[in-house]
Parts: sequence; structure tokens; C-alpha cells
Amino acid sequence: MPALSAEARLSRLRVVLCRPTHPGNIGAAARAIKTMGLSQLVLVEPKLFPHPEATARASGAAGVLEVARVCATLDEALAGCVLAIGLSARHRELVGKVQSAREAALEAIDHTAGGDVALVFGTETFGLTNDEVSRCQTLAFIPSNPDYGSLNLAAAVQVVAYELRMAAGLVGGYAAVSYPPAAQDEVARLHAHAARTLTDLGFFNPARPRRLLPRLRRLFARTRLEHEEVNILRGILSAIDEALKRARGR
Amino acid sequence: MPALSAEARLSRLRVVLCRPTHPGNIGAAARAIKTMGLSQLVLVEPKLFPHPEATARASGAAGVLEVARVCATLDEALAGCVLAIGLSARHRELVGKVQSAREAALEAIDHTAGGDVALVFGTETFGLTNDEVSRCQTLAFIPSNPDYGSLNLAAAVQVVAYELRMAAGLVGGYAAVSYPPAAQDEVARLHAHAARTLTDLGFFNPARPRRLLPRLRRLFARTRLEHEEVNILRGILSAIDEALKRARGR
Repeated sequence: MPALSAEARLSRLRVVLCRPTHPGNIGAAARAIKTMGLSQLVLVEPKLFPHPEATARASGAAGVLEVARVCATLDEALAGCVLAIGLSARHRELVGKVQSAREAALEAIDHTAGGDVALVFGTETFGLTNDEVSRCQTLAFIPSNPDYGSLNLAAAVQVVAYELRMAAGLVGGYAAVSYPPAAQDEVARLHAHAARTLTDLGFFNPARPRRLLPRLRRLFARTRLEHEEVNILRGILSAIDEALKRARGR
Repeated sequence: MPALSAEARLSRLRVVLCRPTHPGNIGAAARAIKTMGLSQLVLVEPKLFPHPEATARASGAAGVLEVARVCATLDEALAGCVLAIGLSARHRELVGKVQSAREAALEAIDHTAGGDVALVFGTETFGLTNDEVSRCQTLAFIPSNPDYGSLNLAAAVQVVAYELRMAAGLVGGYAAVSYPPAAQDEVARLHAHAARTLTDLGFFNPARPRRLLPRLRRLFARTRLEHEEVNILRGILSAIDEALKRARGR
């Protein structure tokens, strides 16, 4: 069996929302899921669905809502899953294992090799019931402020979906534009020019150098000068040279 | 100088929202910030603030809105910061360094040793302007679906605030309730009892054992039986023994 691609693994993740109260949260969860490359949303007894507010908050992820499954029970939502991870902000009895969202995401991605994996979220106000928790093999928590750990439901889905994408290794992103670096000898000539100009300016006294030049070298060493930047700085030095000449000529 | 506590580091983080359009997002961002233990929210030219929708979406984090600073310019918002990290979903010119949110969070927490660090977010629709990007020393991106990377503003704040809390090392959480484990000899007696009962049941034939007993041992080895669970299983076996006796007596 060939190894699953990261994208295929994400397609095997089911986000299950148990009895969500606010249709806006369903839409926002759909958007959160899609931004992280997940696609399966399952709703157990949603209070209001479909609903215009869900569609509005889904924004460009309305397609996720269109194919979302609505189930009468959590058992139905979990059918075919090889692992169910319940999200709970607080400690529950009779659960075998508790992990942080980051650890749980790694386990979830790992288990997608065998089939679908569910991430199960409870209601906005009360979370999962004990009965729902007992359907999950492990519990996961999102690290949060002990004095106020109440994440919005869709915000919790966003964090978990983000950790799932990270666990699948899909960091992606973009790089800074790279410009040609300056050669060492260009930089050496810049420093020599700077020493002359600063001497002419009366800012630098070669007889009492202190640590001015080494400090300037350190500053520009840290920035890793680019070729074009050396040209700009030499241009500024030349402009100072010219101004000094004109001032003397006056 | 004593090392800063993780909580003190989080208190030095400023979440800066540039020209947010929807007051609901401001409130949701305040909630996201507080759930992760951050407290500083700075708004640059918010379209509508204060606003009842911001207060509603802030939920238990209305206090963060009450002390949120409103600034006329990004420069004013960044005054006193030792580092400004811009969040951008796309590549921008003339930026020295680009990092994932996870890497940027580590750098941000590291820099709190020297003072406040800003995380700068652009508008809902267009993100940061080039002018705003030029005020930031580095850019960060949230890894996302290349086909739909449009996180809601408050959802992006939630993910970044979460990574900042994780970078500060504040995982916290709770552990599964632990029950006394079974002793090895208890488990051995359970397996012996099971072998007898399964023989009496006619399910196990000691003359042709195949791999039944090793498979059962493997199953229960994986679960790491607890003392109380051994009692329950022995109770079930005894109930089967009794039923068999009654059936023979009939």
C-alpha cells in the first residue's frame, strides 16, 4: 500500500459538531475547516441548519456546508471511523487518555492510515455530555488561560484544524524575496569610504578612533548587506562628500 | 535581572488590528486574546468602535475591549515595541524575513525579554498595506489551504495567540483520572479463569488451542488493566460459570 499523501490524510478527518446552537458557528467552522484543507463536516442534531447565517459566515466555504452530513446521533456520525477524539476543556471521568491538541493532531493524522478519524466538539455552552465522551477513545484539550478558557466553538475548530494541517506537515507558505548579496570586497570598500567621509565630516577622528568603525561593521554585518544596498549607501556617502566640497569651496 | 515568567511574557504581547471593518471581529479577537492569556489589544482606525456587536462577540472578554487602545496610526500603535511582526497570507516585497506562525511565535516570546512585541494584522479583505508591512521587521504566515487560505480575522488572531501561548510553554491542561492498576498476578489469575470458563463454554478447546489465549492476553496487555476492571471481568466470568452450572442442573 503506497503511503497516503498529506492532502489525502486531511480528507479523512471528520469534524463532528454535536448539537450546535448558533448557525453562525456552523458556518464559521466550515470556513475554518476549508482554510486548513479539511472537507468533512458532520452535524449531530443542529438546532438551526441550513440557515442563512451559517451560509454568510462560511464565506468562500459554502461548499463545505452543502456537503455537510446531518446525523440524528453521534454513533451515526462516527460510523466507519477508526478513532474518535473528543475535545473537552475540562477533565472528565472514565476517559483513558488525555492529550493536548498538538499531540492529538499527530495521533489523528497517524490513524488516518487506517480510515477516517473524527474530532468531536460539544455544544457552545456545555461541551460534550458524558454519554458523548464515552464514544471517544481519547480526549484532547486546547491549552488556554486557566482564568478564561472559553474559546468560541468555531475558534476551537480553527485551532484544531490548524494543528491537524501542521501535523500533516503542510506548512507551505512563501519566502521573502531574495536580492543578490553584496560581495565581501564591496562591503570592505563601503567601510573604507565611510571612514574617509566620516573623517571629513569631523565625526570620526582617526587619532582617537574609539570603537566607532568596529561598531558600524558589526551593524552592517548583522544586516547581511545586499549589492544594491551597498550602492545606495555609497551614493549617500558620495552626496556627503560633494556637499563638503561645496561648503569648502564657498 | 530575573527571568520573566511565561505569564509576564504574554502580557508584553500587543495584538494590533489595522483598520478592522467589522466590530464583531474586534470582539471575537478580544475573546481569542483573553482565552490564550494575552491582554493588550490595540486598534488602528477601527471603522466602528466601541460597538454593541464587538461587546457581544467578546463574551467574557469585554474587559479586554474596555482597556483596548485606539490609535490614529500604526506608528503610534507600535511606539515602545522592540519587535513588530506582520501577519500576511501572501508574499510582500522588501521584507527581510518570513516565518511560519509557529516560528514567529517563538521569536516573539524570545523578544519579550526586551520589551513589548507587536503582532500586526491587516483588514479583513486586503490585509496589510505595503506601508504597514514596512513598519514590521518580519512577516509571518499561518499555514493554510493554497486553494482557500482566507481565515476570518478573529480566527487568525486565535491561531496566532494560541501559538504564542504554546511558545511560552503554557500547555497546562488536565490529566485523565488515574485508577489503581492491576497487579501482574491478578491478571494471570484472570487469564486462567478465562481459559477455564471458555473451555466450559465450548468456545476454547485446550487440545486445539490455536492462538486464542495469546490473542486475548495481547488485547488486555494493550489496555493496561486496572484493579477494578479485573474484578469486573472476573465477575462476568463467574456469572457465566453460574449460568453453565444451572443449565447442566436442568
